[in-house]
Amino acid sequence: MALVVIGGVAAGLSAAARARRTDPRLEIVVLEKGPVISYGACGLPYLVEGRVRDPGQLIVYTPEYFRKERSIDVRTGARVVSISHPRREVALESGARVRYERLVIATGARCDTTGIAGAEQPHVFTLHTLDDAARLRAFLLEKQPRQGVVVGAGYIGLEAADALRRNGLRVTVLERSQQLLLRDDAWWTAQVRKQLAEHGVDIHCGVEVRSIEVDRVGDFAADVVVIAAGFKPNVELAAQAGVEIGRSGAMRTDDRMETNLRGVYAAGDCAEVNHLVTGRPTWIPLGTTANKAGRVAGANAAGGRERFAGIVGTSIVSVFGMGFATTGLSDGQARAEGFSPVAAQIEALSKPRYYQGVKTAVELVADRATRRLLGGSVVSEEGAAGRIDVIATALQSRLRVDEFEQLDLAYSPPFSPVWDPLLIAAQQLAKQL
Amino acid sequence: MALVVIGGVAAGLSAAARARRTDPRLEIVVLEKGPVISYGACGLPYLVEGRVRDPGQLIVYTPEYFRKERSIDVRTGARVVSISHPRREVALESGARVRYERLVIATGARCDTTGIAGAEQPHVFTLHTLDDAARLRAFLLEKQPRQGVVVGAGYIGLEAADALRRNGLRVTVLERSQQLLLRDDAWWTAQVRKQLAEHGVDIHCGVEVRSIEVDRVGDFAADVVVIAAGFKPNVELAAQAGVEIGRSGAMRTDDRMETNLRGVYAAGDCAEVNHLVTGRPTWIPLGTTANKAGRVAGANAAGGRERFAGIVGTSIVSVFGMGFATTGLSDGQARAEGFSPVAAQIEALSKPRYYQGVKTAVELVADRATRRLLGGSVVSEEGAAGRIDVIATALQSRLRVDEFEQLDLAYSPPFSPVWDPLLIAAQQLAKQL
Repeated sequence: MALVVIGGVAAGLSAAARARRTDPRLEIVVLEKGPVISYGACGLPYLVEGRVRDPGQLIVYTPEYFRKERSIDVRTGARVVSISHPRREVALESGARVRYERLVIATGARCDTTGIAGAEQPHVFTLHTLDDAARLRAFLLEKQPRQGVVVGAGYIGLEAADALRRNGLRVTVLERSQQLLLRDDAWWTAQVRKQLAEHGVDIHCGVEVRSIEVDRVGDFAADVVVIAAGFKPNVELAAQAGVEIGRSGAMRTDDRMETNLRGVYAAGDCAEVNHLVTGRPTWIPLGTTANKAGRVAGANAAGGRERFAGIVGTSIVSVFGMGFATTGLSDGQARAEGFSPVAAQIEALSKPRYYQGVKTAVELVADRATRRLLGGSVVSEEGAAGRIDVIATALQSRLRVDEFEQLDLAYSPPFSPVWDPLLIAAQQLAKQL
Repeated sequence: MALVVIGGVAAGLSAAARARRTDPRLEIVVLEKGPVISYGACGLPYLVEGRVRDPGQLIVYTPEYFRKERSIDVRTGARVVSISHPRREVALESGARVRYERLVIATGARCDTTGIAGAEQPHVFTLHTLDDAARLRAFLLEKQPRQGVVVGAGYIGLEAADALRRNGLRVTVLERSQQLLLRDDAWWTAQVRKQLAEHGVDIHCGVEVRSIEVDRVGDFAADVVVIAAGFKPNVELAAQAGVEIGRSGAMRTDDRMETNLRGVYAAGDCAEVNHLVTGRPTWIPLGTTANKAGRVAGANAAGGRERFAGIVGTSIVSVFGMGFATTGLSDGQARAEGFSPVAAQIEALSKPRYYQGVKTAVELVADRATRRLLGGSVVSEEGAAGRIDVIATALQSRLRVDEFEQLDLAYSPPFSPVWDPLLIAAQQLAKQL
């Protein structure tokens, strides 16, 4: 009898490591379908760019480390093809079967290219595994493509566009929706659009890609294509075994990361978590959430009692050196969730002018009825991460604008102005409420 | 009948500006004893260093601006010598009298050198006004001193040491207590000491300076001396008028920034505010607090009803490029306040190793009984401001360690590691609780 973990990247390994700490004697088996475990998927664009030179730099732990230091049996190349929960058993592609008492499903997500004809050509890439990134890097060096098309303007799409542009390619980004970087917010989208334009990236919204030709994508010439759209949770195995799938398409979980099947936990890009602003299940696949939820799943699967309260949807991405950071709900999302949102946008300096502060744009959204903060965004070449984290902490704490406005933030000229851009935005928002 | 504000720097001008917004027709008079208003006092060390070349760069607003744009009568060189509250009248050094209906006292603080013989010599400076900094800068350029002694190892003392060292001087810092940068915390003090040593600054604790010779301070050669100790609130005028003084030596105020005298408000470096962690009045003179409390004082003095909830004591200072940031209570302070504190210290990277993350030291303090976070420190060349602000927001929100540990902080390799140093510290602290 053992704990079996399906998936050996962020959530799976966090679960396994935490389970080991919770129960030093538990038998723990991790089944990873790929050839490596524990790679920093968020580092892949920097491998494509060339900033990270060796794929090995993105690998944090090896199976050997887990075997020796944690007594965890990590098997690579071990693809699970079915789960039989009545028998408490998973079947591998190899035909082998592994019995479990508790199961953690951390099967992640994938870039689903099935709707795109021509996606299997050698000049078409996704950017999901270490191998994807290494092959794209090699392609850039060997084939010296001149024209790149990126399908999808989410985080990975724009990071890929940045990486290709820095390698001298002309780059066009095609996005199906009218939103850039996944946020339903005209102000935000305008900021992203401006940054792309300033760095010579051509962007077209409302373009659905159905096929990729050998030298073009629709009207756009392309000798290399990166597909960064169609991200989907890998839930087929789980669904077949009877795990309930939520409206988002990812697995439903409770706050212990347990699915509807007793003893079966799910975490990471394949699972829903609670959204602390809306109080509803959400699917926002990010590495940070995978690690945290994985820990909780692992602790509980090993007999502990831990709770994952949820997320507020914080993310940041660098596009040509500009940090685009968001958390919580946009104005549009807040309205769709039944709030009566009010949004304020300001621009201020990241530091005093005499200390070379740079432009920092902040948007805050609050609910008119309760004055509670619902979300925010920060766009700046400096300090965007720290400032979005303050908003995230405030959301998690359910602060009202009036409380946020009086936050005692650090001030000294090398770091920040005496009125932080966040506080200026809060003052502006308070006026509008 | 008018609102009179004594003091034309941070708190005073925030009060005046906010009063104007609250009541567009109120007569508002600001009396500033010095020749200029609205200067960024925290920028003075950078004027000494030479990074800021023109004192004018530190001036945000002029009296003319306030007169024309805000209809506020700002008078410089207007030193108040007494307040008669029964008559609702202040007397100026010039003999003039100004009547008030409401009064805001924003007299600030001073560096009290009366206990130090020889403090009036031309090679001895304090660093409190724009003129102080400009004179010290001129002295460095004209006299080319070789040996500097700084008295006091608080923020201004170490910023001054940094500025002198960057001008090529050998620098010795003499501190009366055993604490550096005002925090009763051995871990913190060791970090500061290490940074000073690495940059060739000689530091001696437990040294009380009673006199300054023409070429030395005690055993230490000095052809220029900066006194950055003996900081005291300017409360004499107020005390004579009957304003109650708190145990800290600064004026007592309620959460509307009103003193015990009806219609008399106080804000800034001369006033106490509520400490949100201890729930008690505290005196932590900082520009950010001055601005916020000043706004509230001004709004209420003009007939509004606003509340200043208080502070958590957040500060940051750069010492040779290293950010030293703290908020809330140290372990020692927490014990003195009746908590049963537990502290955890960790070191982690500011970003992934493959993205050139730098060492980031974090200390978190929590109460064993309630698991509530009580304070923290961050020491790093990168991201210290953003991270301390997250802790400050958590303190203001009274988060427990278990909540803090699950904060949804932004992650992307150019900005942060997948496990933020703050979360690693929280995990460590949770284990120790």
